Amino acid sequence: MNSSVENWATQVRAGDVRAISRALTAVENGDEAAQLLLRELFPSTGRAWRIGITGAGGTGKSTLVNSLAAHYRAQGKPVGVIAIDPSSPFTGGAILGDRVRMQGHATDDGVFIRSMASRGAWGGLAQATADATLLLDAAGKESIFVETVGVGQDEIEIARVADCTIVVLAPGAGDEIQALKAGLLEIADIFVVNKADHDMGGDFAKQILDMSSLGSSRGDWQPKLIRTVATEGKGVEELAQEIGRFRDAHAEAHHRHTREVEYWKNWLLRFVHHRVIEQITKSDSTGQRLDAIAAAIASRQENPYAAAEQLLSQLSISRKKN
Amino acid sequence: MNSSVENWATQVRAGDVRAISRALTAVENGDEAAQLLLRELFPSTGRAWRIGITGAGGTGKSTLVNSLAAHYRAQGKPVGVIAIDPSSPFTGGAILGDRVRMQGHATDDGVFIRSMASRGAWGGLAQATADATLLLDAAGKESIFVETVGVGQDEIEIARVADCTIVVLAPGAGDEIQALKAGLLEIADIFVVNKADHDMGGDFAKQILDMSSLGSSRGDWQPKLIRTVATEGKGVEELAQEIGRFRDAHAEAHHRHTREVEYWKNWLLRFVHHRVIEQITKSDSTGQRLDAIAAAIASRQENPYAAAEQLLSQLSISRKKN
Repeated sequence: MNSSVENWATQVRAGDVRAISRALTAVENGDEAAQLLLRELFPSTGRAWRIGITGAGGTGKSTLVNSLAAHYRAQGKPVGVIAIDPSSPFTGGAILGDRVRMQGHATDDGVFIRSMASRGAWGGLAQATADATLLLDAAGKESIFVETVGVGQDEIEIARVADCTIVVLAPGAGDEIQALKAGLLEIADIFVVNKADHDMGGDFAKQILDMSSLGSSRGDWQPKLIRTVATEGKGVEELAQEIGRFRDAHAEAHHRHTREVEYWKNWLLRFVHHRVIEQITKSDSTGQRLDAIAAAIASRQENPYAAAEQLLSQLSISRKKN
Repeated sequence: MNSSVENWATQVRAGDVRAISRALTAVENGDEAAQLLLRELFPSTGRAWRIGITGAGGTGKSTLVNSLAAHYRAQGKPVGVIAIDPSSPFTGGAILGDRVRMQGHATDDGVFIRSMASRGAWGGLAQATADATLLLDAAGKESIFVETVGVGQDEIEIARVADCTIVVLAPGAGDEIQALKAGLLEIADIFVVNKADHDMGGDFAKQILDMSSLGSSRGDWQPKLIRTVATEGKGVEELAQEIGRFRDAHAEAHHRHTREVEYWKNWLLRFVHHRVIEQITKSDSTGQRLDAIAAAIASRQENPYAAAEQLLSQLSISRKKN
């Protein structure tokens, strides 16, 4: 077992596409093997730069990420892309396939693109995303894009995974105010107005700049607004430069360490949470007990607050040592 | 202590506005007193009907809820409204005040309106919302509206709290496809197209009906689409009738019990989760330990997977008996 995990880790470190792919599937499924692998790979991580890209649907994020990936590839830099796809929390399954996204990068081993389905609540997706970036980090990807769709809590959670967050807006999409209200204003390190050849481009950009002057969450960094037309590659070079500028401003050891400590605090909380929920819901006997307790509460035979305390007192969440 | 909680509970049961208000503040702040009170009140609950109303900003949800509340009040039914306000996860604080929402109901003790700020992740808001509806239930509110803004995971979570979920859309708001992709299609028991006097009203309604024919999450219930102009009270009566029709279809004992068991399962999971996170982050000594572990991981001195296992093994999450 251990030697097979070691082999697997060696393959991932060497950038083997099939080994990475298999590892990401294990992460997505929450397999225990994924954790053993990540534990093995962890010392080889810490070099990648994680770039979160978020915004509502229809703003052209995927095209933008593809253009940025091509830009980095032209400079010979290894790139990873994790695309969190819009999908129902009840039916699961990614809408966009990896194959669709591979257009233009299909024969290039230096870029790794992977779609992950948006899962239900409980922070499972943020955990899987964090683990996936760790894997691609160990595989030597210098820049890792994490692309999400939407303007909700998920995006805020995923932004915490990224070192730099780009919020993409498009004039006329009609959701900019909503996006900003939802908290995207505060997580943006860089604003992109894509489809900037649109009639309203100028006014729209001014409006966003006015709102963004309220400040960002990254200390004294003032988010800039970059105008792009991703389908034509316009503004992509400028965006890459701005990403570089942000990186330079935050690469200083103390700054990066502070961010990393925050990152791992969130990671530990998610991990513990995940394990607790897993123990309560996935174990057969405990799952049945949970159903029985819920039924007793529903018929007012038991008090939920008393029942919850009892459930907590019986919880034993440490796994056997491997 | 116990006798003061008993007095408080008696006041809440009697519908005393100040006692309810104080209780909701305690729930919002996660005070231990709130839990003692809820434990005391639980046997008096189970009669209220919880109606979730969600949709993107600008669709006129608040006006619709106010009109519905007025409609129920005209029939002499006690009504409660919990409005989850759009607010930043970093700064907290509700944008809309209760006072703004009280327009037209200010002197009516039969309606209780309360705004709650949208909190960070970890399901804290869903838990607080569930507890708030339980309080209003004990206070004798027959219909409780839970109003949320947005199209993300929060709304899906909060929909689980409601007995009936209304998704409000408006023609030209431009976010309908996004809303549906995000999973709102599946949680809707009733669709409302508000501002239906708008030019595109007809086409838009047809489009939504086509999409909604894919089915809802409530067994064989087929969600209808109601067209309203909330500002003029148009369609509100029809909507109230449709809510009644849904209620009648699901009031059958077995049906309601099944939903209630699911509700309390989710509630128990949230409760346990909440307590675990609380123990790790709020206790002074543990909080410091978490910081130290995160710092050691950030500098690659410790392995996060090993550290998380150790954290789990040391977790002791049961509270002393009261």
